[in-house]
Amino acid sequence: MDKILVFGHKSPDTDAVTSAISFSYLQNQLGLDTEAVALGEIGEETTFALNYFNVNKPRVVTTVSNEVKQVMLVDHNESQQSVEDIEKVEVLSVVDHHRIANFQTANPLYYRAEPVGCTNTIILKLYKEHGVTVPKDIAGIMLSAIISDTLLLKSPTCTDIDIASAKELAEIAGVDLENYGIELLKSGTKTSDKSAEDLLNADAKSFPMNKKTVRIGQVNVVDVNEIIIRKEELLEAMKVQSGIQGYDLFILLITNVLENDSTAIVYGDHFKEVSEALNSSIKDNVIFLKGIVSRKKQVVPQLTVKFEN
Amino acid sequence: MDKILVFGHKSPDTDAVTSAISFSYLQNQLGLDTEAVALGEIGEETTFALNYFNVNKPRVVTTVSNEVKQVMLVDHNESQQSVEDIEKVEVLSVVDHHRIANFQTANPLYYRAEPVGCTNTIILKLYKEHGVTVPKDIAGIMLSAIISDTLLLKSPTCTDIDIASAKELAEIAGVDLENYGIELLKSGTKTSDKSAEDLLNADAKSFPMNKKTVRIGQVNVVDVNEIIIRKEELLEAMKVQSGIQGYDLFILLITNVLENDSTAIVYGDHFKEVSEALNSSIKDNVIFLKGIVSRKKQVVPQLTVKFEN
Repeated sequence: MDKILVFGHKSPDTDAVTSAISFSYLQNQLGLDTEAVALGEIGEETTFALNYFNVNKPRVVTTVSNEVKQVMLVDHNESQQSVEDIEKVEVLSVVDHHRIANFQTANPLYYRAEPVGCTNTIILKLYKEHGVTVPKDIAGIMLSAIISDTLLLKSPTCTDIDIASAKELAEIAGVDLENYGIELLKSGTKTSDKSAEDLLNADAKSFPMNKKTVRIGQVNVVDVNEIIIRKEELLEAMKVQSGIQGYDLFILLITNVLENDSTAIVYGDHFKEVSEALNSSIKDNVIFLKGIVSRKKQVVPQLTVKFEN
Repeated sequence: MDKILVFGHKSPDTDAVTSAISFSYLQNQLGLDTEAVALGEIGEETTFALNYFNVNKPRVVTTVSNEVKQVMLVDHNESQQSVEDIEKVEVLSVVDHHRIANFQTANPLYYRAEPVGCTNTIILKLYKEHGVTVPKDIAGIMLSAIISDTLLLKSPTCTDIDIASAKELAEIAGVDLENYGIELLKSGTKTSDKSAEDLLNADAKSFPMNKKTVRIGQVNVVDVNEIIIRKEELLEAMKVQSGIQGYDLFILLITNVLENDSTAIVYGDHFKEVSEALNSSIKDNVIFLKGIVSRKKQVVPQLTVKFEN
């Protein structure tokens, strides 16, 4: 039996890394030979979660067709967010909670998407459907992903089923949901030791919108000002990346995880579209976004609609 | 609550029509207000099944945005197989057993695909996951779809779970699987009263392959010769359709449902690619395809690989 690699999106966040681990574990229990890998450096929040529950960091890969013929995708489907050589392997299954775009297969496959807050919420369902018990350590990292993706159950992407899943996983993992949640969110917010590139790349995704490429990064903080004072340095780095990668618009969302608002630094063209789509004005490349914490639900669809009409 | 329309692909076969009905029934039991509709004339086999189990024929529509904002797709996802104005409505969910291609959403959605023989096999799972009982009449038409899509459990697309589902549904519907199956398959094979256009359009789908458009129709028979003797008439109709619609290649699969082989009539360019992809030679526009009964599994992937390399 040939090995199958399982991975989340590039610039992996906690859900991308841990859903690969939890889904790989499930598939192995069902008799397959899979390995979870990551498509980029494991961030601080994810490292905190893996260490807390004594789970090994997955291997980082940049290509997959040199070692396997088949893969399983978690927490993404769009090819520009996936591994470089995705066209050279067969996608056997996808578990995701995002829109579907730029995804194509030659053969029928397993595809399981639900509009919930976190991929691991869907994976918990899959464990139950297959009658597989979630081990304590896996429960801990799955819980961490739900906390991370929903900002401790407060994001507008959070559904009742995410809340129920988080409670159930906290019970199995043996942690207090609220206390562990705040500790986890804070672990990912230290920015003073990070370069502008680190901040831009930490959790960034590209979205094609009507022939334009929109790059949207997100960084979680407990104090927005520690990023805003570095605006000029960040704009310079956004300019360099946009020149190399051809981004038409670059947005860095700076999200206050305790207050559940964001401020964004914007570089490139299309400021008018951004202002209109997000209902707020841009001043000196900065826009305040009251109540906005979810790129997927509160930023990408609004920009997509604006760009495509 | 706004009404939601549920439908299968254009040129609907038994699975496309009945999966819309069975999925709509499930969604209504779960509290939504949905209606199953069809994107084209209901064929003879489907009519036989609906009449046998006393289920009303769904309404036929050609557009949907004039009456609803949201839709659910069953048994297809590719936009060229869907309703004309699919871009104008929101797709809330998809249940399918085909490859994914030419499908894109702005928002996260429910997407449930599995590589099984029939959409209704997946829908039966969904009934169980939601704890909804399958009524006798719905079980009958779901069973009919499995028989139709798997040629009475003999197609290579048929999986163990299709077989188990068919047995379970036959029990609920109160019919003998084998006897009813043969009766159903024969009901769809009467071709003498059909025009060449009827035969070409009865179950035809378009597939974009590396900038070419490949049209593949399929007709089930108990005697292949009754179609082959009409070859010139069919080629003339294929020529007319190809001219109007811009098909680069048109294949009509004539499948013997009792012997599980097909013969195909081929029109257009790319005969060399067809021969190589399907491992058989074309003589006077006719190719014999031993053991081939599944367009999805035995024809489309092979042609896709050939065209894209």
